[in-house]
Amino acid sequence: MSTDERILIGHGSGGKLYRDLVGDVFVAAFSNPVLDRLDDAAELASPGARLAFTTDAHVVQPLEFPGGDIGTLAVAGTVNDLATAAARPLALAAAFIIEEGFPLPALRRLCASMGRTASSVGVPIVTGDTKVVQRGLADGVYITTTGVGEIVVAHRLGADTVRPGDLVLLTGSIGDHAAAVLAARGEFHLALDIESDCAPLWHLVAVALAAAGEDLRFLRDPTRGGLTTVLAELAESSGLGIEVEEAAIPISAPVQALCDLLGYDPLVLANEGKMVMVVGPESAAAVLAALRAHPLGRRAAIVGELTEAHPRRVALRTAFGTRRVLDMPIGELLPRIC
Amino acid sequence: MSTDERILIGHGSGGKLYRDLVGDVFVAAFSNPVLDRLDDAAELASPGARLAFTTDAHVVQPLEFPGGDIGTLAVAGTVNDLATAAARPLALAAAFIIEEGFPLPALRRLCASMGRTASSVGVPIVTGDTKVVQRGLADGVYITTTGVGEIVVAHRLGADTVRPGDLVLLTGSIGDHAAAVLAARGEFHLALDIESDCAPLWHLVAVALAAAGEDLRFLRDPTRGGLTTVLAELAESSGLGIEVEEAAIPISAPVQALCDLLGYDPLVLANEGKMVMVVGPESAAAVLAALRAHPLGRRAAIVGELTEAHPRRVALRTAFGTRRVLDMPIGELLPRIC
Repeated sequence: MSTDERILIGHGSGGKLYRDLVGDVFVAAFSNPVLDRLDDAAELASPGARLAFTTDAHVVQPLEFPGGDIGTLAVAGTVNDLATAAARPLALAAAFIIEEGFPLPALRRLCASMGRTASSVGVPIVTGDTKVVQRGLADGVYITTTGVGEIVVAHRLGADTVRPGDLVLLTGSIGDHAAAVLAARGEFHLALDIESDCAPLWHLVAVALAAAGEDLRFLRDPTRGGLTTVLAELAESSGLGIEVEEAAIPISAPVQALCDLLGYDPLVLANEGKMVMVVGPESAAAVLAALRAHPLGRRAAIVGELTEAHPRRVALRTAFGTRRVLDMPIGELLPRIC
Repeated sequence: MSTDERILIGHGSGGKLYRDLVGDVFVAAFSNPVLDRLDDAAELASPGARLAFTTDAHVVQPLEFPGGDIGTLAVAGTVNDLATAAARPLALAAAFIIEEGFPLPALRRLCASMGRTASSVGVPIVTGDTKVVQRGLADGVYITTTGVGEIVVAHRLGADTVRPGDLVLLTGSIGDHAAAVLAARGEFHLALDIESDCAPLWHLVAVALAAAGEDLRFLRDPTRGGLTTVLAELAESSGLGIEVEEAAIPISAPVQALCDLLGYDPLVLANEGKMVMVVGPESAAAVLAALRAHPLGRRAAIVGELTEAHPRRVALRTAFGTRRVLDMPIGELLPRIC
């Protein structure tokens, strides 16, 4: 925990400060075997079925951006967290904190986006709540979405199940969401045509599960903290090393241009419609083919491999043939991205 | 919907404006058979078990008040919404939106309250999320709590199951939560000793279920909008009338004093540790005795009766022997109460 005993913007990142806050405050207060795993979705000990349970607060600014809005994001983010547990979404709950004076037409647009996005993966929004705070005490609207899903596989996925030789797949290009939101803020007067990748990935994950079966060992959506954070956490939790091939990582030209211009590392930028998958080597080709046949996985690629060579470290082989270690970022470059 | 197409503070109340917002915006965008029932907790079509699912955003100010804090409230509110569906709480999710600069010791205190309150009803907090917004864009901390519970009864509860002659029970005194929060705001320089009733009621509801079985037909916690709103909604949904005896409604002396001083109607004040129950006449005495034997139900009372005499209307017989109709409040007297 920081020696300055106050919440910093960086505590809201997906990086080291965030993890420290979660451990020192939340796990300390609520500790139990399910929470302590710190998975994106918790497994519920429910009678009769294996259920996954996940919640996400959404505070993105601007509320509407190319490729989506806070409504799309609120549904996609929660569906994707369920998907990381191989869970088909059963039902969503949505809680709105709205600033006094917020225009109702904008609220209707955001809700229409939520409804459309939820329908696209066949999940109903079954319950909700609304609170209104005085003008100035929120930034338009904050939406917390919570999901319950049914885990559809018999085997357990997780960082502790991956093995040396397993391959790391990425379902598409990185950085699109963060870059789209950043460009939409208009601070840099960029005329780049970048759309957020914001999308619910349950169907894409189902396709991979069908192709890999038990060979699909780990799923994680690289949101806050980006691909680097997912891989750094995976290396730490699995005790294995990861070799990553920079040239294999899909990235769109405008996102690369924005990163070059502003000096951002695309590997730490947030994504909202991508999944990182670890797959046994025998099934990797089948999964890759299945992903590429799906509209949301056309640019899927094998980007890395688990190894015993350098335990708990992620090594990136750059396009120039050099190697560098990928460390978890401390805070977050871009706040209010999701 | 208001002709002024913007969100008003009153849209966050439990009253008519709130119901209009829910219908015109949220149900319009998300409509499905489960949501459209507008119950405090939704029933999930889950394989193998009947589950209840509910979410609540908490934005109370001040964050700490006599008798509890936003952490106690966040857990109790969600447990109580599950309890209205006769559901034993299985797991909670908590999402925090925190203002930059918020003191960590205060966050630790609120989390300790959440942990304690959750432990007191045996429910683990299994998953969560944290977002940080810039200074000024939240009021300290907002907490959205979502719960999953197992419905423990075979019969269905609901406003459509109540019958003429059924009795309305209230598990204790009204107005304590709103009055405690109001007094804690210090605006009126009141030296009244009022504590919030904030408490999770699952055990109390279990006691009533054990005593009444299928004769327990309806449960609702009178939060925003108070007892009046619960009864007005019940009358409307059931198509029956309700006779209420003012003299039978428990109210503490300091809450009554505050209402007399400031001109508030205690019947519309929010409660966070009370339940309204509708019970068949054969079981009412047994339920009342069981409630009174429980620490959270010592002041339980029979306060009214369902009747065919005046469909969809709630008639209050006042302490002076006169009668007045209880209409649902339009907005909310006291914002940011929960």
